[in-house]
Amino acid sequence: MNLNPEFLKELKTRFQIVFSDLSLLEEAFTQSSYVNEHPELKLQDYQRIEFLGDAVMELIVSEYLYKKYPNYPEGKLTRLRAAIVCEDSFSAFARECHFDQYIQLGRGEEMNGARDRNSLLCDIFESFVGALYLDQGRQTVVRFVQQVVFPKVEAGRFSYAMDHKTNLQEWLQKSGEVDITYRLVGEPTTSNNQQFTVEVVAQDQILGTGQGHNKKAAEQVAAETALKKLQKR
Amino acid sequence: MNLNPEFLKELKTRFQIVFSDLSLLEEAFTQSSYVNEHPELKLQDYQRIEFLGDAVMELIVSEYLYKKYPNYPEGKLTRLRAAIVCEDSFSAFARECHFDQYIQLGRGEEMNGARDRNSLLCDIFESFVGALYLDQGRQTVVRFVQQVVFPKVEAGRFSYAMDHKTNLQEWLQKSGEVDITYRLVGEPTTSNNQQFTVEVVAQDQILGTGQGHNKKAAEQVAAETALKKLQKR
Repeated sequence: MNLNPEFLKELKTRFQIVFSDLSLLEEAFTQSSYVNEHPELKLQDYQRIEFLGDAVMELIVSEYLYKKYPNYPEGKLTRLRAAIVCEDSFSAFARECHFDQYIQLGRGEEMNGARDRNSLLCDIFESFVGALYLDQGRQTVVRFVQQVVFPKVEAGRFSYAMDHKTNLQEWLQKSGEVDITYRLVGEPTTSNNQQFTVEVVAQDQILGTGQGHNKKAAEQVAAETALKKLQKR
Repeated sequence: MNLNPEFLKELKTRFQIVFSDLSLLEEAFTQSSYVNEHPELKLQDYQRIEFLGDAVMELIVSEYLYKKYPNYPEGKLTRLRAAIVCEDSFSAFARECHFDQYIQLGRGEEMNGARDRNSLLCDIFESFVGALYLDQGRQTVVRFVQQVVFPKVEAGRFSYAMDHKTNLQEWLQKSGEVDITYRLVGEPTTSNNQQFTVEVVAQDQILGTGQGHNKKAAEQVAAETALKKLQKR
């Protein structure tokens, strides 16, 4: 067994996780390049466990979003899930957990900088989750994800995925199609006034106005303003 | 509540399922067209529950495949999962469960033939699973899927997804790249002999021979023969 004792210690102190079957954890952190370099060890690489971990994350995040945001329509849930369950996010979580330090890589891959590659770190995050699920069951994974992932959702790290224009459209179209227009009503004129001004209009009503350094930003502000007004009614 | 009593009876007698919260089941079978036609009923359509059910199916099928086929490499598991968790399969399962009869549709959608549309039936299969998961938990969904889905996997309904040529390639390339060639060695000559004959060759060894009504079929047979020989060694 090649697992770093520091890793086991960190899992225990930081996440209260103690694996029963350490060979699952080792498999989850072993890349095929390492397996190929050490045929005598008869190791498995992480890919099968990652296949499972991917689906575990998808369900845990889906269930969390479904219950946390009972008023979000499906489209918004799907966009938010896609922003959380993706290579960028998972590789960041893997780094935050220091998983990058403990991957078993072949020398060639090490020299190619694989240890810092997002696609590998994303895989390792999923395979860790798969191993944890097999070893400890769903509840322990939920606890881990509650510690590592959900606080970031609640702090708004993924809110870029839910842009205000789409939200406004979904709000207005709850009971059928509605034409929504963004109208540019003010452009930068002097070096002192660098702002664009946009109005959002639906069914001949101005729902909101917004300003920004470009048209897109002004549209987002207008949509956000409109949504806030509508939701207060 | 608009649920057909026949439906509840069928769920109970055929699947031993009795919902506690029937509003979840109704939501799972209500399409947006019906919601829009009956604003006074203040219904929810199935989309949020389907969002959840999709992830539930993905995990249950993944866990089943992972445990059922401990020797399959990840690529094969992924192909098999994709063949099971897809519109074609889910719509077929929905029909087999008679779910098509119980969907609440708006009149326009009904007239457009939506009730027989695979995309809708696939959605409904997922939303049923989502509702069952919320109402009864994971174990009941597993029991339902064991009855409706897994026997078909074991009967080979999805084995087309795991073609023998790919399997042979995966077997041979477990420890690095190997060149595999399919060589046509016999073509139809007379009306009595309509067979193509193909040899599969790797590292200068003929691993197997196959015959078929076309080149592709002969290659599959050759790969299957080769695999059987290799696995016996």
